[in-house]
Amino acid sequence: MAKHSRVVKVGRVLVGGGHPLSVQTMWKEPLRADGFDEALRIIERLEALGCGILRFAAPDIEAAELLGRLAGMTGMPLVADIHFDWRIALRCLDYPIAKIRVNPGNLGAPWKLDEVAAKAADKGVPIRIGVNSGSLPRDLERLPDRAEALVIAAERELEALDARGFVAVIVSMKASNVTDTLRANELFASKHDIALHVGVTEAGPLVQGCVRSAVALHGLLSRGIGDTLRVSLSDSMENEVLAGREIVALATGERSGADLVSCPRCGRAGFDTHAFTARWRDAIYAIQKQVSIAVMGCVVNGPGEAKHADLGISGAGDKVIIFRKGQIVHNCDAASADTLFGEELARL
Amino acid sequence: MAKHSRVVKVGRVLVGGGHPLSVQTMWKEPLRADGFDEALRIIERLEALGCGILRFAAPDIEAAELLGRLAGMTGMPLVADIHFDWRIALRCLDYPIAKIRVNPGNLGAPWKLDEVAAKAADKGVPIRIGVNSGSLPRDLERLPDRAEALVIAAERELEALDARGFVAVIVSMKASNVTDTLRANELFASKHDIALHVGVTEAGPLVQGCVRSAVALHGLLSRGIGDTLRVSLSDSMENEVLAGREIVALATGERSGADLVSCPRCGRAGFDTHAFTARWRDAIYAIQKQVSIAVMGCVVNGPGEAKHADLGISGAGDKVIIFRKGQIVHNCDAASADTLFGEELARL
Repeated sequence: MAKHSRVVKVGRVLVGGGHPLSVQTMWKEPLRADGFDEALRIIERLEALGCGILRFAAPDIEAAELLGRLAGMTGMPLVADIHFDWRIALRCLDYPIAKIRVNPGNLGAPWKLDEVAAKAADKGVPIRIGVNSGSLPRDLERLPDRAEALVIAAERELEALDARGFVAVIVSMKASNVTDTLRANELFASKHDIALHVGVTEAGPLVQGCVRSAVALHGLLSRGIGDTLRVSLSDSMENEVLAGREIVALATGERSGADLVSCPRCGRAGFDTHAFTARWRDAIYAIQKQVSIAVMGCVVNGPGEAKHADLGISGAGDKVIIFRKGQIVHNCDAASADTLFGEELARL
Repeated sequence: MAKHSRVVKVGRVLVGGGHPLSVQTMWKEPLRADGFDEALRIIERLEALGCGILRFAAPDIEAAELLGRLAGMTGMPLVADIHFDWRIALRCLDYPIAKIRVNPGNLGAPWKLDEVAAKAADKGVPIRIGVNSGSLPRDLERLPDRAEALVIAAERELEALDARGFVAVIVSMKASNVTDTLRANELFASKHDIALHVGVTEAGPLVQGCVRSAVALHGLLSRGIGDTLRVSLSDSMENEVLAGREIVALATGERSGADLVSCPRCGRAGFDTHAFTARWRDAIYAIQKQVSIAVMGCVVNGPGEAKHADLGISGAGDKVIIFRKGQIVHNCDAASADTLFGEELARL
């Protein structure tokens, strides 16, 4: 948590000024008018997993209106991501949208930004300026130092809002490369007290994206740079949120939900810890308190790890032992393990 | 790469002494006598993805014999993971096994270790001592500092081999927790010149496990601690290898295969980059040279990122553009994109 950044209110979430790091994700599909019920269910699940702020692309007026209506139905702060057309931003601001992401430089004539900034200020809605390595202005494209180019691009956008007296700003500078992401944010944080949304853009498919994002964002957050984060994966929103919350837990040492230890399985194991973990993953991660859970499948390390956990299960072949804070509470077969584990989980 | 660690030869791979970091994974199922053809195909795929050393549990003599036979059929260095029974270790050493992982302390009477150490030395096979937070000796279990406990446990095992003049040793100290993993390896590296196999044990399901392993292992490897690594996931060997190679690439700045940039998709995108990336992931990661590939699905950042790559594809709705080193080489519809992309990939 950067203690020095200015606080910005994004719906019910405070970003910056040492407030807890909020994890974001972004909706992966166009919103549909007949999809509100499902969207609300998904939002509930994302919230249970640790999502604090949720962004949607608003590519046209119709999308803005759908998003605006959805924002009225949930406490989750919804953010509109807007490019090119100032009218979309204006329309979003007619609804309880928690933040808009828009780059002044791509709105066109200055009077368009005047209108957007005035209306956002009037409604108390913050703006995120988001600069990406894939869409730098042409003159900055040519700079040899991409991190510096990202910072200059962000500062240009900032000046445009500054000139209009608009201060409720969050900035992001995202590169697809870890080093540029680290350096751009370090440089910016050394010069400004503006809240930072951090992320590696287009970090890749699940495994590569988690690794890149972990290295870059842990690198920043553990040194107090960054106030909110998004892990960008070519994968599900749920996985973006889980990656984000794990990065936050490691960077701050504060874990808001369950800490899961689970076994990689090997030729020794007869108990299928992969399948067991997959079945229980979402329920475990949805626990809203700090507990440790161990799912083990080996006589070598299993009982040791399982004993240290608040709730531990260790299987070997068909014999399964369930521990609660180091005490054996069940000695059962694999077929009964799910039911008994579920009961113990509910008791946590 | 720890420049100061002693070199150990693990089959065709040199570990330590500044040699390239080797990525390991561990077989997740028991080997079967009728499964050799499939095992060899899997080994080939793992090698293409970047696996350098492959470990198998050898829980009994029969498993040791199957593994030994398999080791004779592949150039991949195969490692036998042995607990409790010195006869399994002796049997493995009758075959071209590249390394055995065994902890002297759990073999029982000292003469058993005498036999194992003598035969391993005779055959030129190194031993990895692997200490895990889940299976510490009882007196060390009680130490408040788990990192110190891991180091002491490793040193006890080392002494037993030292006393027998056995020097081809690799050590691992794995905790399921990032901080203990970091501290134990730092402490050990500050005292010894022995090659380190680094990893976070039972790091969890895919997302959490990638994040934890990335933070811990990048933290160590980027400071020169660690000579070989394994990412332990409750997930596939392929994903363990991909996570490992990405961590190595970020820690060393040296990428041996393709660098993939891919878009997280959003409500703006009509081109399904998730599905496209999933279809091409293994082919891209199997490329054995340093190339950059971008798979993008957005008019905002897509062309910018795609232009920077050696091979880039950027879709928006049904319109797809394929770039080669910044030049548009195809302007096609989504249906033809796979074929044309595959042709360009083959040309790289």
